[in-house]
Amino acid sequence: MSVLVVGTMAFDAIETPFGKSDRIIGGAATYIAYSASNFVKPIKQISVVGGDFPQSEMDDLASRGVILEGVQIKKDEKSFFWSGRYHMDMNERDTLDTQLNVLANFEPILPESYQDCEFVMLGNGVPAVQHSVLKQMKNKPKLVIMDTMNFWMETAMEDLEKLLKDVDVLLVNDSEARQLSAQYSIVKAAKEILKMGPKYLVVKKGEHGALLFHEDKVFVAPALPLEEVFDPTGAGDTFAGGFIGHLAKTKDISFENMKTAIIVGSAMASFCVEKFGTTRMKEINAADINSRIKQFVDLVNFEIELV
Amino acid sequence: MSVLVVGTMAFDAIETPFGKSDRIIGGAATYIAYSASNFVKPIKQISVVGGDFPQSEMDDLASRGVILEGVQIKKDEKSFFWSGRYHMDMNERDTLDTQLNVLANFEPILPESYQDCEFVMLGNGVPAVQHSVLKQMKNKPKLVIMDTMNFWMETAMEDLEKLLKDVDVLLVNDSEARQLSAQYSIVKAAKEILKMGPKYLVVKKGEHGALLFHEDKVFVAPALPLEEVFDPTGAGDTFAGGFIGHLAKTKDISFENMKTAIIVGSAMASFCVEKFGTTRMKEINAADINSRIKQFVDLVNFEIELV
Repeated sequence: MSVLVVGTMAFDAIETPFGKSDRIIGGAATYIAYSASNFVKPIKQISVVGGDFPQSEMDDLASRGVILEGVQIKKDEKSFFWSGRYHMDMNERDTLDTQLNVLANFEPILPESYQDCEFVMLGNGVPAVQHSVLKQMKNKPKLVIMDTMNFWMETAMEDLEKLLKDVDVLLVNDSEARQLSAQYSIVKAAKEILKMGPKYLVVKKGEHGALLFHEDKVFVAPALPLEEVFDPTGAGDTFAGGFIGHLAKTKDISFENMKTAIIVGSAMASFCVEKFGTTRMKEINAADINSRIKQFVDLVNFEIELV
Repeated sequence: MSVLVVGTMAFDAIETPFGKSDRIIGGAATYIAYSASNFVKPIKQISVVGGDFPQSEMDDLASRGVILEGVQIKKDEKSFFWSGRYHMDMNERDTLDTQLNVLANFEPILPESYQDCEFVMLGNGVPAVQHSVLKQMKNKPKLVIMDTMNFWMETAMEDLEKLLKDVDVLLVNDSEARQLSAQYSIVKAAKEILKMGPKYLVVKKGEHGALLFHEDKVFVAPALPLEEVFDPTGAGDTFAGGFIGHLAKTKDISFENMKTAIIVGSAMASFCVEKFGTTRMKEINAADINSRIKQFVDLVNFEIELV
């Protein structure tokens, strides 16, 4: 089952209370691909990079079953760059620098060979770009999942609202859910957002886990309690990769299976934050993932008899 | 199985973003007793009130199996009074007024008829008062659970440290766990706190649920996602009441059963916050509780096969 991934492949420079990285590989689509490729192949990537993006990184992704035909390489330009500083509460961060570079005029082109993708992951990015990819698909995908952020709510709300009508699952964090719905209560926010188009809403709460909403149903998944969250960059994208990876692998888009996909996504995100950037994502194997998923089962499992 | 409860019985005046209460019944021991009495009787209460504390409230507690022999009534004095205002984020609140009144020189006396209690719940209060009750017990209880708060860490840390050595289970919220341990990471905080005496640590995170730590084991329970948290006052005490109520009812203090007790406590707390003060605690019955516990099972239950 092919998975289509749209999003940035980029450079980040990150400061956390525990350390500081150089300019390292980042980008939503990079994290999504590293994560999802543990579950399903091929991943068909749509992105844009500059001449500065290392071939070794492309080769590494390709070796994991990531098809790069849809990644435009603009030799004379620079890749997107983001720099940020996390607070002691890793749910909060300040952007120090953003250089759009190749993203400034990115027009995604869907290769003909990507038309078979039934699962689509629209990584966080310009809503019109995300929508453009969807519109180039000749067949309606089985499932369209989309990530977005507050920045697009402030600068491209009209495009975002149009796009939401074509999306099955929306992934946002709690403050973004509040902003999008103008509701403080997450339960009320979910009700509003489910009226805007998506049939499923995933609210990511970082160290506090994630919530899945569908109709009047709700599921709660914890985050793995970690001694140290070393670098949360890419955790949401890694979550998204595990989420769509599990769904595409099992070809089951029921609410029950989405609950499992949330656990898989949470397990993948718990690896991502253990080291800077994509470092940890390159190290882990199936045994590590199984062992981590088993930890999640133990974490929430309890026996109960009623009063 | 008798349960001993120590703590305040008092008045509160509460402001939330959704409304404002008059001077209403509150106090840690009040909430604990209302909650625990759904699971086990008798509850043997130790507290102190002034002449202003309504007899009707005493009668109501008594009708639920709460023994009040250990509640001192100081006819010419006033009950403890606390007034506070919650922020939009209900995990945050400002104290507007605190009047110690009868609490200023409270010396708890353990009635002889309370000596059979094997389960002890030390509600939040002066550590020396909590400890005094423990010291009056001739037999070592099967389980001592204690709640405390940041105020005592700042004003009575020495007494608190002594008391912690005699406590089996400590209940605190996440910021209190950080303050007590001088560790930011909750996992590291738990490790430090488990060296201070308690064998079990419960970290309450409000709308984000609760964590249970024991040796190298951890369990995570969600909070029920609610449309509105109307008034969080007493939620932690109500949680504690459900937690000890379940343990005392089942007479099982294993880690496995504590996990279940956390779910029961969480279910009870989810009722408490639905209305001002103890209102909701007086309305609910066993059927309501069973139905709510069932919601928690659905909330976290998932199926998984490994990769």
